[in-house]
Amino acid sequence: MRRFTADDVCLLLARLRERTPLVQCLTNAVVTNFTANALLAIGAAPAMTDIPIEADQFARIASATLVNLGTPHAEQRVGMQEAARAAHEIGTPWVLDPVAVGVLSVRTRLAADLLAYAPTAIRGNASEVIALAGLGHGGRGVDSVDTAEQALDAAVRLADRYGCIVAISGATDLITDGTDVIRLSNGHPYLTQVTGGGCALGAVTAAFLAVGDDRLVATAAATAVYTIAAERAAVGAGGPGSFAVAFLDALASVDGSAIRASIAIS
Amino acid sequence: MRRFTADDVCLLLARLRERTPLVQCLTNAVVTNFTANALLAIGAAPAMTDIPIEADQFARIASATLVNLGTPHAEQRVGMQEAARAAHEIGTPWVLDPVAVGVLSVRTRLAADLLAYAPTAIRGNASEVIALAGLGHGGRGVDSVDTAEQALDAAVRLADRYGCIVAISGATDLITDGTDVIRLSNGHPYLTQVTGGGCALGAVTAAFLAVGDDRLVATAAATAVYTIAAERAAVGAGGPGSFAVAFLDALASVDGSAIRASIAIS
Amino acid sequence: MRRFTADDVCLLLARLRERTPLVQCLTNAVVTNFTANALLAIGAAPAMTDIPIEADQFARIASATLVNLGTPHAEQRVGMQEAARAAHEIGTPWVLDPVAVGVLSVRTRLAADLLAYAPTAIRGNASEVIALAGLGHGGRGVDSVDTAEQALDAAVRLADRYGCIVAISGATDLITDGTDVIRLSNGHPYLTQVTGGGCALGAVTAAFLAVGDDRLVATAAATAVYTIAAERAAVGAGGPGSFAVAFLDALASVDGSAIRASIAIS
Repeated sequence: MRRFTADDVCLLLARLRERTPLVQCLTNAVVTNFTANALLAIGAAPAMTDIPIEADQFARIASATLVNLGTPHAEQRVGMQEAARAAHEIGTPWVLDPVAVGVLSVRTRLAADLLAYAPTAIRGNASEVIALAGLGHGGRGVDSVDTAEQALDAAVRLADRYGCIVAISGATDLITDGTDVIRLSNGHPYLTQVTGGGCALGAVTAAFLAVGDDRLVATAAATAVYTIAAERAAVGAGGPGSFAVAFLDALASVDGSAIRASIAIS
Repeated sequence: MRRFTADDVCLLLARLRERTPLVQCLTNAVVTNFTANALLAIGAAPAMTDIPIEADQFARIASATLVNLGTPHAEQRVGMQEAARAAHEIGTPWVLDPVAVGVLSVRTRLAADLLAYAPTAIRGNASEVIALAGLGHGGRGVDSVDTAEQALDAAVRLADRYGCIVAISGATDLITDGTDVIRLSNGHPYLTQVTGGGCALGAVTAAFLAVGDDRLVATAAATAVYTIAAERAAVGAGGPGSFAVAFLDALASVDGSAIRASIAIS
Repeated sequence: MRRFTADDVCLLLARLRERTPLVQCLTNAVVTNFTANALLAIGAAPAMTDIPIEADQFARIASATLVNLGTPHAEQRVGMQEAARAAHEIGTPWVLDPVAVGVLSVRTRLAADLLAYAPTAIRGNASEVIALAGLGHGGRGVDSVDTAEQALDAAVRLADRYGCIVAISGATDLITDGTDVIRLSNGHPYLTQVTGGGCALGAVTAAFLAVGDDRLVATAAATAVYTIAAERAAVGAGGPGSFAVAFLDALASVDGSAIRASIAIS
């Protein structure tokens, strides 16, 4: 693969802030607010349109769509099917975040259905990626019980089968298209102590995919910006509450020089 | 019209804090938390009762009701109809926030239905007001693509047709009853970088309408207090995250002297 | 009764942080985010699984379950019945928070149904506890119009009838098993100015019940840790916004020495 560098990240971040991509989020009830604020902070425009009929309409004007399975109520499940199908039909990028797949039956079946619409990227923790690939039973609800490296085989399998990017969140994040693997070691444990720390990355990934042609690079750039912002926010944070506030500030202020100074590609 | 002054604002704010109006909010899933906290901070008592049967019951004991169309799930749509009808029947003020009307079909039809219950005030951005008046297609989701002044004709038309106040949020906010127009130039761009920055104003407007007899004055007072609090919160904020926190603090602490020192009526 | 001491609280808090209990929350739309963050901060693992079928599945793997009636949509009501029944069947602790019971009919009927599954603890404000015991009409929505002492008879009656612990939030919190009463006078008025200030305590109570054998002690310990964290957060807070942030930090940092120094058992 061609090298993934800080330059890629800086270019896409600048483009994102210039274009303000409109990101449709069909996401769980716990993290809607944090996700919308993360998108606004990074420079995107969020819209949480998830009801039947409108989910389809909005997917056709959005720059990208996120489908997160955290609390998939019946009406939202219909909206998710509509949005994923519409994105697939018109060719806009969409991201699947398979929260707790493998542990719970309704979302596991839904995820299987949604894969038919070929997500551009799948973002999850190791246990979710393993479960989605049919290689394990999922974690303990939203918590991963596996490491990202343990999920690499599953990620490659998913990437090959669905022609998508797979991003596994962990202490080191792995992003793969099935052939190449990018490892990023930025971030901070505080991200795991704020609800939506992973979910909002799915939305930010959708925003980057809206402005990047190379899907592997765009997905990795999203992870890099997000986790570097987390590192910066953790400095001086007095706990998870003040970290979450500082993180939104950092998403808004993180820039090329911070990225070049901090990015940890391995 | 008689002049709208800082005195009007101070009087209503003091009365609001003394009476703690009970504000029923049927609002979108993204901003419920921020809206409830904004109401608590300003001195009102929020309750997000939005399910069928209870929405009607609660509208009959609430001091005012907000109906915000951001994520109008099927059950909530029934609740919205019940609450608006009940408020109309018993004569308590209610505010309509027509989020993304004109862009999406379900809420556009719902908004048309709700107008039959004669909202006391309509609060939206320019594109939403234009679309609600039937003069345009709405913005880009929740974003306005028009300025407040461009929506003034639409606002006057709505005010005349439904006998309501119309408040258009923008760099300069316009509040009109169809005859008089109040322009307020307080606020800060950070309000557009925090999700719910506009939505929570709809709830605060409902709280002011609960304590003010002159609906034009009450709606303008809500906008003034809200946007002056935003200005104060922006001082020293390090980004949208810390701004949102400081904004809730400012809503709780803003007082007569701050209002007199800052209000920008034009 | 044997004395309830700071040692009990310290022991359970240490155990909670060691075991990271998985707490299922079926709670209202306003406070999901704050509740999840409060659980993460204290050291528990939240999961807001509330849809039919999955609510049952998750209750069977969770360490404890919270059922909060704040915004009980139809689908969630089914999930609540499933989760409470499953917890009852397998013997994991579950907490009922009867928000606005007595005021609104749908949740009042639901609460009556849920009591059949013998909650381990009921947490509410005075008006809610009185209404749930059938001795009054509830407060003004989510606000209590009675003091905790006024609700003690009702709490004893509920504890006797359902064999549960009842915790009444107020300036002095009362926790009773029907025989013994623990009074705790920690806390800060800011907790009433942040939405979910009471609701998140229900979830934290579930987390403590997951790690404590003595249900009265565990419920009181949850209240003690929660309200002592609030006291510490209030120091230096500039208003309800900064308090809420500092409160999450304080939940994460509160320790044995803080508890011993501050606990106000009367």
